[in-house]
Amino acid sequence: MSETPTACILIIGNEILSGRTQDANLLFLGTSLARMGIPVKEARTIPDVEEKIIAAVNECRQKYTYIFTTGGIGPTHDDITSAAIAKAFGVELERHEPSVKKMRERYTERLNAARLKMAYLPAGAEPIMTRVTSAPGFVMENVHVMAGVPSIAEAMFDAVAPTLKCGIPVQSRFIDAYLGEGEIAAELAIIQEMYSNVDIGSYPFFRVGKVGLSIVARGTDKDAIDAVIERIAEIMRELGVEPVPDTELM
Amino acid sequence: MSETPTACILIIGNEILSGRTQDANLLFLGTSLARMGIPVKEARTIPDVEEKIIAAVNECRQKYTYIFTTGGIGPTHDDITSAAIAKAFGVELERHEPSVKKMRERYTERLNAARLKMAYLPAGAEPIMTRVTSAPGFVMENVHVMAGVPSIAEAMFDAVAPTLKCGIPVQSRFIDAYLGEGEIAAELAIIQEMYSNVDIGSYPFFRVGKVGLSIVARGTDKDAIDAVIERIAEIMRELGVEPVPDTELM
Repeated sequence: MSETPTACILIIGNEILSGRTQDANLLFLGTSLARMGIPVKEARTIPDVEEKIIAAVNECRQKYTYIFTTGGIGPTHDDITSAAIAKAFGVELERHEPSVKKMRERYTERLNAARLKMAYLPAGAEPIMTRVTSAPGFVMENVHVMAGVPSIAEAMFDAVAPTLKCGIPVQSRFIDAYLGEGEIAAELAIIQEMYSNVDIGSYPFFRVGKVGLSIVARGTDKDAIDAVIERIAEIMRELGVEPVPDTELM
Repeated sequence: MSETPTACILIIGNEILSGRTQDANLLFLGTSLARMGIPVKEARTIPDVEEKIIAAVNECRQKYTYIFTTGGIGPTHDDITSAAIAKAFGVELERHEPSVKKMRERYTERLNAARLKMAYLPAGAEPIMTRVTSAPGFVMENVHVMAGVPSIAEAMFDAVAPTLKCGIPVQSRFIDAYLGEGEIAAELAIIQEMYSNVDIGSYPFFRVGKVGLSIVARGTDKDAIDAVIERIAEIMRELGVEPVPDTELM
C-alpha cells in the first residue's frame, strides 16, 4: 500500500492568480491520474516568478512521485518555466535539435529567436513531442513540464502517460438525494469508520431551489465501494427520501 | 511599495484534487482581491487531511498578509477544517452561541449534533455571519475560513472584505490580435524592460481556427498601463494586424 505513486500539480501563471483565467488543467489531470492509480495529493498555483518556481519544484519533487507543471513554456518574456526548472536542477538550457527542425518546418522563415527559445530544454531533459504543437514539453527526472493551454497540456499528458508507473486505479461511485447533509452526517461517519479503505465525501448542492447532497465513495476496493453506496441508499430510504440512481463515474 | 498586502488561497477538499469538482473560488477571490489592491501570490489545493491543513496554514500565514481558506466547514465527517485550524493555532474549539441560536431558528427540531458541529469555532475566532447560511465562517488572526460552496464563499468574502486593509487597486487593460505570440515576443520584452512597474502577460488563444493572442497589462500605475497598451497597438499595426479594440477590465 505504501507503494502507491502520488502526484503534485504546479499551475504556473500570473493569470490564474489574478482571476483573469480559469484553470482547467487540474480537473483533467486529477481525473486522468486517479484513473491511473496516481492520486493527486496537492496542487499549487504560483506566479511567473523564477524563485517561486524553483522553490516549489524543489520542495514538491522530493515529496511526491510525480510533478506535473502547466504554463510558462511559450515564446514570450513571461514564459520562464524552462529556465527556472533548469536552475532548480542546477543545469543549463540546451538546444533540442529535433524540435528546432520541427519548428523550422512549421514556421519556415518566421522562425525567430523568440520561437527558438521554446526549443531550449534543461540539459538531460527528455522532450515531450506532440502533434498539436512543434514546441516540446519535457520531462526532467520526475518533473513533467507541460504547456498551459489545455488542449496542448492534454496532448502532452497523453504523450507521457504511458511512461508513468501506475498504481491501483481509483474508482468511485456517487449517490445523490434531496436531503440536507446534516440529516445523514451521523450515519455517514459510522459508515466511514466501518470502511476505512473507502474515502467518503459529502457535497451539498442546490438545484431548482432544493437542497440536496451528493455522496461520493472513492477507493481501490470495488466491493467496499459498492457496499458503502448500498448502505447509504438504505439509510436514505430510512430517512424517507429516494436516492437518485447513481451512475458509475468510470 | 513594500507595504502592499498579499493574499494566499487555500482550497481544501479531496473533490478538487480528484477532478470531481471544478474549483470556482480562486477566480472570484483572485479578481476581488486584486481590485482591493491585495494581490493573490499563491494558491494551494490540499486534501481533507488534518496534518496537511495544519502545515499549509502555519506555513502560509507567516508568508502572506491574508490567508483565505475554502471548504471543509460543513456538518459531515469529512469537514475537518475548523478543527484543523484550531490545532494550527493551538486552541480548542468553542461553541459560538449566536450561531447556535441562528441555527436553532433555521433548523428547529432538526438541529442535531452534526449540524451543531458547525457552530464550534476555534477559541478567539471572530465569526463570519451571512444571510445565506446560519452556519458561520470565521476569522482567526489573518486566516479567513470560508465555505467551499461558491455562493456561500462569496457571501462570506463580502462580509469580511470591509475589514481588510487594502492596497493600491490593481488595474488592467488587455489588447487582442490575430497574431502568433512569437511574432511580437521580442518587442514585448523590450516594452516590459521599459515599464518595469507594469506586469505584461501574453496569452495565446485559438478562435474559429485562427491563432491569436491576448496581451494583458496589469499594475497600479494607470498612465503606464495606458502607455504600454498604446505602444503594443502601434506594434501590432506595424506587424500588419489591426488590434481588436480593448475594453477596460475594471
